[in-house]
Amino acid sequence: MKYAIGIDIGGTKISMVLGTSSGKILARRLIATQTGSKTQQCLSEMVENLAGLLKDSGISKKQILGIGVGLPGPVDTQKGVVPRSPHLGGWKGFPLQKWLSKKMGLPVFVANDANAAAIGEKIFGLGRRAKHFIYMTVSTGIGGGLVVNRELVEGASFVAGEVGHMTVVPKGDACKCGKLGCLEAYASGTAIAAFAAREIKAGKASRISHFATQGNKLTAREVGLAAKKGDSLALKAYERAGFYLGIGIANLLNILNPELIILGGGVLKSAPRDFWRAMLQSAKREAWPQAFQAVKIVRTKLGDLVGDLGALALVFENERL
Amino acid sequence: MKYAIGIDIGGTKISMVLGTSSGKILARRLIATQTGSKTQQCLSEMVENLAGLLKDSGISKKQILGIGVGLPGPVDTQKGVVPRSPHLGGWKGFPLQKWLSKKMGLPVFVANDANAAAIGEKIFGLGRRAKHFIYMTVSTGIGGGLVVNRELVEGASFVAGEVGHMTVVPKGDACKCGKLGCLEAYASGTAIAAFAAREIKAGKASRISHFATQGNKLTAREVGLAAKKGDSLALKAYERAGFYLGIGIANLLNILNPELIILGGGVLKSAPRDFWRAMLQSAKREAWPQAFQAVKIVRTKLGDLVGDLGALALVFENERL
Repeated sequence: MKYAIGIDIGGTKISMVLGTSSGKILARRLIATQTGSKTQQCLSEMVENLAGLLKDSGISKKQILGIGVGLPGPVDTQKGVVPRSPHLGGWKGFPLQKWLSKKMGLPVFVANDANAAAIGEKIFGLGRRAKHFIYMTVSTGIGGGLVVNRELVEGASFVAGEVGHMTVVPKGDACKCGKLGCLEAYASGTAIAAFAAREIKAGKASRISHFATQGNKLTAREVGLAAKKGDSLALKAYERAGFYLGIGIANLLNILNPELIILGGGVLKSAPRDFWRAMLQSAKREAWPQAFQAVKIVRTKLGDLVGDLGALALVFENERL
Repeated sequence: MKYAIGIDIGGTKISMVLGTSSGKILARRLIATQTGSKTQQCLSEMVENLAGLLKDSGISKKQILGIGVGLPGPVDTQKGVVPRSPHLGGWKGFPLQKWLSKKMGLPVFVANDANAAAIGEKIFGLGRRAKHFIYMTVSTGIGGGLVVNRELVEGASFVAGEVGHMTVVPKGDACKCGKLGCLEAYASGTAIAAFAAREIKAGKASRISHFATQGNKLTAREVGLAAKKGDSLALKAYERAGFYLGIGIANLLNILNPELIILGGGVLKSAPRDFWRAMLQSAKREAWPQAFQAVKIVRTKLGDLVGDLGALALVFENERL
């Protein structure tokens, strides 16, 4: 049996797992992400917990092949430095790969988190038998990883797979990235909540209107719960997001013609069925028939572990090369 | 020296060349495309001209490695059958690869014309040193071919690279393909001419207004000539197309992050400088900075021969594999 460690670094938490080459997780630890002046402290805490992870699992360091790390933003997988990211202020430019490798005495592989998740799907998930597939995560943001001819597409500067930032509405809504009309500005959890909040503020009736009026922060989760109870404003917010997600998916079908699209992320969990229906409907309408017929659009089977398993998979993928 | 034959089958003409593995063309023949009940007659004429091509060049059939054929539409490169295409009514389902191979006693390789052009760029053109590049043809329609990790992307059902049919305006203008809001409906030569004609009909002043009022068919070429003379309506038509083409290119940059985009096709030839400027401007605005910085956007150096050289290249590419 082969073992590795996977670290998924997000804006709020860092998840660490120790698992096998068949994707079985033997131990898991979670810590809160600290940024800014607390970055160094957070890194030390991470290393302590990696030691704890080995202890928890009863696996010795000698048995570990390496450590895979998933990070937000376009990661230079050769240099292994933390990229600029709104989620990791203070980490920017930190030579994570080199530092962690020295600290732990193990090979370290870093990658963009959505690319890592695509590798996770390729090795442990539904992508195992697919030659061409796309992993898409629809969460607070929208990210993706492309596998073409069984290889991850990194692109010329590690940006490939930024499917959330294709323009779906010219001169449209502002996206967090600074551009206008991105898919993420229309179909992410943030966009769903923002649309619902806007409608409520405009005076539309909804069972979640107290969220906006009482100054609570509305999230896609609350909108999803209301939608599942039949709230028409909430349903509209999800159907609108589904419509745009379908356009984004259709564009990917026409450009890359994958056999499989695997969807992950929180929005898929909180969404009512109408979201899925609206998404499939517009994907079908906007895609070439031959491309739509050739694809299966499915939800990840790796569940909440897709990020962890992705980071873990980086080790086994790199070992294979 | 190695020799091959390339056949580029279009809606109006069939171009046949005999050339070398370094892309030198020794002989060329052109015939008009005949469709419907005249398809068989056209095929016979094609075969006669292939014999003529050998004669013209002084190369014997024994010296020919094979024949490459570029066709419009999503071509199954394994089956080698002519796909359904609005340009080749009556050819649909014809087993071109098998038939031509038997008729000529040579291996035959068929592919979508824009994919063939991408292979032409890879072997003879600006794509020779690129790992990731996209060839885009902007003509009456918009097509493309993707090279990722030095390999052509065919996709699960040979549709990959249909970049002209990504949706750039949800529920937008009707495209010939039957969908709404495709890039082709906004940035192709057809779209440029249609926009200019619409504006003229709406009473806008232009030096080409007689085209619309006298019932002549306006093409992107006339609009381009007028634009180059400073006609503001014509300039607007090209700038608008450039704006949308830039969005399409930015989407490709964010999704695939290529190092090179090679543009070919008639629109690039007829376009005023403002078209190129508008295209670069919107591509820059809509693309991630890292993706825009990493790419060169250039015109093909294969000129009008890009289709012929693409068909020719299919033979040398297949020989290499």
